[in-house]
Amino acid sequence: MQIITFLTDFGTKDSYVSQMKAVASKLTNARLIDITQEITPHDIREGAYALRCATPYFPTGTVHVAVVDPGVGTQRRGLFITTSSQILIGPDNGLLMPAAHLLGNFFVYEIKNEKFILDSISSTFHGRDVFTPIAAHITNGVLFEEIGNRINDFVNLDFGQGEIKNNTAIGKVVYIDRFGNLITNIERKLILDNLEFGKNIMLFLGKKCIKLPFVKSYGFVKKNEILATIGSGNLLEVGINQGNAAKKLGLKIDDKIEMLLG
Amino acid sequence: MQIITFLTDFGTKDSYVSQMKAVASKLTNARLIDITQEITPHDIREGAYALRCATPYFPTGTVHVAVVDPGVGTQRRGLFITTSSQILIGPDNGLLMPAAHLLGNFFVYEIKNEKFILDSISSTFHGRDVFTPIAAHITNGVLFEEIGNRINDFVNLDFGQGEIKNNTAIGKVVYIDRFGNLITNIERKLILDNLEFGKNIMLFLGKKCIKLPFVKSYGFVKKNEILATIGSGNLLEVGINQGNAAKKLGLKIDDKIEMLLG
Amino acid sequence: MQIITFLTDFGTKDSYVSQMKAVASKLTNARLIDITQEITPHDIREGAYALRCATPYFPTGTVHVAVVDPGVGTQRRGLFITTSSQILIGPDNGLLMPAAHLLGNFFVYEIKNEKFILDSISSTFHGRDVFTPIAAHITNGVLFEEIGNRINDFVNLDFGQGEIKNNTAIGKVVYIDRFGNLITNIERKLILDNLEFGKNIMLFLGKKCIKLPFVKSYGFVKKNEILATIGSGNLLEVGINQGNAAKKLGLKIDDKIEMLLG
Repeated sequence: MQIITFLTDFGTKDSYVSQMKAVASKLTNARLIDITQEITPHDIREGAYALRCATPYFPTGTVHVAVVDPGVGTQRRGLFITTSSQILIGPDNGLLMPAAHLLGNFFVYEIKNEKFILDSISSTFHGRDVFTPIAAHITNGVLFEEIGNRINDFVNLDFGQGEIKNNTAIGKVVYIDRFGNLITNIERKLILDNLEFGKNIMLFLGKKCIKLPFVKSYGFVKKNEILATIGSGNLLEVGINQGNAAKKLGLKIDDKIEMLLG
Repeated sequence: MQIITFLTDFGTKDSYVSQMKAVASKLTNARLIDITQEITPHDIREGAYALRCATPYFPTGTVHVAVVDPGVGTQRRGLFITTSSQILIGPDNGLLMPAAHLLGNFFVYEIKNEKFILDSISSTFHGRDVFTPIAAHITNGVLFEEIGNRINDFVNLDFGQGEIKNNTAIGKVVYIDRFGNLITNIERKLILDNLEFGKNIMLFLGKKCIKLPFVKSYGFVKKNEILATIGSGNLLEVGINQGNAAKKLGLKIDDKIEMLLG
Repeated sequence: MQIITFLTDFGTKDSYVSQMKAVASKLTNARLIDITQEITPHDIREGAYALRCATPYFPTGTVHVAVVDPGVGTQRRGLFITTSSQILIGPDNGLLMPAAHLLGNFFVYEIKNEKFILDSISSTFHGRDVFTPIAAHITNGVLFEEIGNRINDFVNLDFGQGEIKNNTAIGKVVYIDRFGNLITNIERKLILDNLEFGKNIMLFLGKKCIKLPFVKSYGFVKKNEILATIGSGNLLEVGINQGNAAKKLGLKIDDKIEMLLG
């Protein structure tokens, strides 16, 4: 079965996302799956993180339409990106790039051929009029070269990867989820090669330092206790069991994280 | 592929909408698409706008179930409406009418035949017990005449159409989206026949008057600047780039809009 | 058509639910339906009510994945439950039990066979790595005995059933919906055997007593008036037409309800 996904900052109160699904349904029988429509409006980085987090679980051949697009209707280009396994479609503003880096072996194309987009293209809704029809045509097997041409000067965005030096993990906050858990760019494998569950971590916060247990999951500490764990996106995260770590620690996206292991 | 859509004020926290999809799934393999479940409770007009906005993008034959229904369980009638291309199902309170006017060539039927509704009909949930089964039976090809009979005394609701007189566009606010953008009933074509993108518009607000650029999209003005544009519903809208125009201008639904063009 | 449903406290802002659907889509063509993803985080009881409310409307053979799971990653077991008609999958914390009691004739199994779960099982996301793959394999016809073994020492949760004594209905609040309506554990049939629509009910609140009409639906009383009715879950509920009964009456989940009928 073919799959097309949708990730936007349109919310679900207005009918915009349903209009995209309507257009897709006219062109293809592909299964339509919501990744999320609740990206903070215009927050490209938050959208990029969510897309990067979700894509690895989808089957080969899945086509993702992502629209967080403050520049819609200006000269910014529309892209589709082929990767080792899946296709990404959306604006040229960095939104698609962390997922592209993660999926690997990617090539970026600019959408060019107007034959594959809606007749009466709206200046404000490329998600419905450009990106969704392109997604449908790709699931239907239209050749990439018929839709656009390869480019190299796309807008890049790369979350980077945390590292370990002198037994200290160094990275940054790349996302904060709705529970206030702080997700870093320090990979699961990097940590597990250097630290066992049950050991402690020292988290540096300016001049202060906090000791937190490295545990398999939130349930291993008491309510309101702080912890470090490997989250569902396979990245090191810091949280508070049934509490809000971002608020408590005063940390936000892009803040540097430094942790002494063990 | 057959499609049934759902538009309600039930929200997505409670399981009500899933119960409607469960009932549909028992009767049909049609694809099930959410238009929105987040209409402000009991706000028939907001629901009517969302339905009018979404329907044009769906394929011919799509069946729409819409439930914003403060009068459920009273004597208000249940309707299905055939149009030039799609079917609308819901309560007789005006909710379906703007979409019916837009799709055109419509005929209104009262739902009569109890054979096609759930055995243990709940007094409070016609969306699940009446409208969804009717939708499923219609996608399965049951004849309209077997389900109900034509009526003419339905509750009407018509957003009307803005007009242009002496180079002044006159209409009203028919919807405010989650970003606070003010959507009018002045059609795209009417404006584009009289004004080019890049020109200015004078918006009258009581005794004041505001000059705003008419642009292709939000990205054409700076952050926090006001603008007029053609929105994704093909209607003239007034917004503030990354800001809330409704709050800033103090305008609300049904407020008159008067604009000197060029 | 096979159906898999999803009920969680993950919300729809993060991409977690889409990851579950991605995993399901790799293994099965079953239709995927959201019951709700907006259970209050960690509120097992609220999730249990929503699941109990929705399941009766689904076709025989539907497989429900429910995840409200504060103990994820600890020693708490993963379960699947066969019932007279449908399958329930989730953590062993009571979440599945009210639905199991309602569907009837149930048998509880502990999930054992690691062959059917994801290779790199995350400690924090059993919804994606354990429960969803099990659901997909069950829709594909894998035998229950291959997946796990019967247990009897599961965590039980039973909303109980209200009763009528001396013309007084006695029960408790089991759920409060988003409109503030108070849903009790007093069944439709019990009430309708003892009271006609149009009669009055005396609701005892501490030392006070409130008279409220028992009506077919909210539309039968004026705006802001209190009422009792049979809700869409076939349970007696107390509400205020277009108002919030829970706030007005100061009642919360598990509060005792005592009502003199007629």
